Amino acid sequence: MHSYLKLTQRLDRIAKLNHLLSIVGWDEQVNMPDDSGDSRAAAMAEGSLMAQELLLAPELDDLANKADLENLDSTAKANLKAIKRQIDGAKAVPSELNHALTLAVMKCHQHWRELRKNNDWPEFVKVFEPVVRLSREHAEARAAAFCLTPYDALLDMYQEGISTAFLEKVFGGLKTWLPELIESAVEKQPTFQVPLGHFSVEDQRSIGLEVAGILGFNFRRGRLDVSHHPFCGGVSSDVRMTTRYSTDDFTQSLMGIIHETGHGLYEQGLPPEYEFQPVGSTCGMMIHESQSLLFEMQISRSRQFLEFLSPIIKKRFGDRSEFSSSNLCRIYQNVKPGLIRIDADEVTYPAHILLRYEIEKKLIGREISVQDIPDLWDEKMKAYLGISTRGNDRDGCLQDVHWPTGSFGYFPCYTLGAMLAAQLFQSYMELNTKILEEVSIGDTRNINAWLNEKIWSKGSSLHPFELIKNATGSELSDNAYRAHLERRYLNRD
Amino acid sequence: MHSYLKLTQRLDRIAKLNHLLSIVGWDEQVNMPDDSGDSRAAAMAEGSLMAQELLLAPELDDLANKADLENLDSTAKANLKAIKRQIDGAKAVPSELNHALTLAVMKCHQHWRELRKNNDWPEFVKVFEPVVRLSREHAEARAAAFCLTPYDALLDMYQEGISTAFLEKVFGGLKTWLPELIESAVEKQPTFQVPLGHFSVEDQRSIGLEVAGILGFNFRRGRLDVSHHPFCGGVSSDVRMTTRYSTDDFTQSLMGIIHETGHGLYEQGLPPEYEFQPVGSTCGMMIHESQSLLFEMQISRSRQFLEFLSPIIKKRFGDRSEFSSSNLCRIYQNVKPGLIRIDADEVTYPAHILLRYEIEKKLIGREISVQDIPDLWDEKMKAYLGISTRGNDRDGCLQDVHWPTGSFGYFPCYTLGAMLAAQLFQSYMELNTKILEEVSIGDTRNINAWLNEKIWSKGSSLHPFELIKNATGSELSDNAYRAHLERRYLNRD
Repeated sequence: MHSYLKLTQRLDRIAKLNHLLSIVGWDEQVNMPDDSGDSRAAAMAEGSLMAQELLLAPELDDLANKADLENLDSTAKANLKAIKRQIDGAKAVPSELNHALTLAVMKCHQHWRELRKNNDWPEFVKVFEPVVRLSREHAEARAAAFCLTPYDALLDMYQEGISTAFLEKVFGGLKTWLPELIESAVEKQPTFQVPLGHFSVEDQRSIGLEVAGILGFNFRRGRLDVSHHPFCGGVSSDVRMTTRYSTDDFTQSLMGIIHETGHGLYEQGLPPEYEFQPVGSTCGMMIHESQSLLFEMQISRSRQFLEFLSPIIKKRFGDRSEFSSSNLCRIYQNVKPGLIRIDADEVTYPAHILLRYEIEKKLIGREISVQDIPDLWDEKMKAYLGISTRGNDRDGCLQDVHWPTGSFGYFPCYTLGAMLAAQLFQSYMELNTKILEEVSIGDTRNINAWLNEKIWSKGSSLHPFELIKNATGSELSDNAYRAHLERRYLNRD
Repeated sequence: MHSYLKLTQRLDRIAKLNHLLSIVGWDEQVNMPDDSGDSRAAAMAEGSLMAQELLLAPELDDLANKADLENLDSTAKANLKAIKRQIDGAKAVPSELNHALTLAVMKCHQHWRELRKNNDWPEFVKVFEPVVRLSREHAEARAAAFCLTPYDALLDMYQEGISTAFLEKVFGGLKTWLPELIESAVEKQPTFQVPLGHFSVEDQRSIGLEVAGILGFNFRRGRLDVSHHPFCGGVSSDVRMTTRYSTDDFTQSLMGIIHETGHGLYEQGLPPEYEFQPVGSTCGMMIHESQSLLFEMQISRSRQFLEFLSPIIKKRFGDRSEFSSSNLCRIYQNVKPGLIRIDADEVTYPAHILLRYEIEKKLIGREISVQDIPDLWDEKMKAYLGISTRGNDRDGCLQDVHWPTGSFGYFPCYTLGAMLAAQLFQSYMELNTKILEEVSIGDTRNINAWLNEKIWSKGSSLHPFELIKNATGSELSDNAYRAHLERRYLNRD
């Protein structure tokens, strides 16, 4: 048998084990009873270790090297490349270090929620410092294997191709115009009526299901449930989106569902013939975020889509002026600098990311210590958004789950995704000038077909930069993003 | 390191993989969208194969043999014995045969529901014959390994210790008195008022949760959900019970939940220190069924418990005469010979089992062919229950999921479990003469504590016959069962 074929059989098994882990991981967030966590954690850790061991089997390396000499088509070549990347990633980090990091992260994550609630930075430092120490070692181990700087090695783990040099370029542009845009957007913005009332979970869920379905989500291969932290999980054949409902405000949950629908559409559009191979998986977290943000920011917060959404909301919650498309537009396009990233609007959101990027880059690069974080956070919040977090770490550097769980290098994907979403949408508008008309009647079939062709069905058969170039004709930049934000928030178009 | 310790580490890994499979299996029945089945089946099959391969690793055999020579305490010895039983079971059946049987079962199971609906026995035979052929081979392979007859090898797989000889003895007794008891019970039974109305799923679920909790089920380590076929799954740290609701009849679902609660209590009472070892698992399916039937038949269908249940039902559905304890008693103790096993009452149920046992024993023993089943079924239904199934295979030999899925040898566990439930309850009544008073106020704490001591916490550290002897002072027989049925259905006590 060809070495490549044998290799894919090994990867097929790993993917199937990961399929099980993914469903169980979803179950943990959505269904698991309160006292079942220890056993579950033990079972999942063992499953992950098995997947890791399967990837590290010495034969896989041999097979991958032999497969290199075989006559492969372009998809197989891309798959082989992705497989090697996985193997190299697994080999790069000693298993003891991995294990130690996992334990440190578990401990820090467990304590984080309580310590955040208590605004207790000094206690948090005790459980966080081991995470930082081991994350640095982890980054350095990957860096050595991939010939990158430590922080770049983390960036590259979440999104192949992304580096500090790249970020300095695109974020560098962003920094020149963002603060002024925030200021002008705040000044120019109209007031809106807050929709008060009790919005039942069932009604909100019904609207969510309806809208997700209209946007193209296939509920015969996916679900929508409730979890404390909304996410999109599961597997491409069975995509599990979650949200959370607040009965005094339906607007956030609804937009949250649309966001997850963007992620879900990407997963559902992956090439089924490579379901259990690396080339059949998504092309990195920047690309993933671009899909959720394209559906949330470009399509659904547009005046046109809100014209479509308004009668759906009125049908369910009554014909009130707060649910007019113009008021919904003012709600969903409201700009307000605030302390909390996940509550931030589209305009101030990148400032939250810039701040985190600049701090974590220095932290992983050993330029600053954990102790320096609160002051730096306060300083940058004041610079970017004019708000101090002094003495309020709860709503400052303790707010995110990313760092306590060792996810350094992820944050930039959010803003890169937002930029890419704008660039993709702009490119598509040039191809289909009627897209906003289509959006105004809730018809995304054409843009979905285009995204499916250009992004979803490609899996990870192309390098992300190639994928972007193929879809938009140019490299990723902040141009379309800036144009979009100016049009929407300065011109109020 | 001791060989035994190394061996337990291997088993720990297998158990954790099975933990994942168990949660995913529950998810498949409860949550999985319609079109996600193929990928899910592939992932689960691969996971099961991995567990099988881990068990068949040659080192395990060596470790088990070396562990035999080590100085082990009695629980470790029992664990080692259970491990060897698992390894021997896995080694007994060639993996090609296993694989072929799995495929045949999948195909037969897929077609069964539709063919049953269409009453299409001839078409069913086509997909069922391969299942029977391969099940016979499977039974014969196990028989050779365990020095048993083929059918006994299947009986032993679901419940260690059970054999045809044993069944001939206990079922032989049963057969002498059951037909007459059925006849007398039908004659003597009072009429009852059918509770008509619309019983909402939410209300039914609330009562179910309340009653399961009262019976001792710990919802911090378990759940109650909905599935097409009610079952109790999950793992001991996270027990997943299911039911299905019919809005025009709450009585069946409520008793179904109580039945699953019996299974669930057993799982939740298993020794946590052996959670991931064979000795920490249940002692076989007869024992398992005895626990569900003890809670359903002995406790909850008793006049005393129905006195407790009546106000709970009235509180939810109104103070109506149909919900009086005496009417509930007449409902829950109604005897009516019928075609369908799962709808059968406590008195006629064993007749359904005798029939299936007698047919499957001959089928696996190559004494009859698949083609003989419908006639035999009809003949025995007439003999045991006075009803013909001629021309109505839908409600005859096509009704159960067991045979299409290759589960030959399971049926006897139901009636053995019913017998054991009666014997356990009788033994406990001798120890605690106030038990029925306790039951009448919904207090099962004392009997739960006794069951926990005698059955649940033992896991599979004792041979099932030893477990029974320890708990009840005698071997399993039909005596207590007969006495229970006569008391309840002839004396209407």
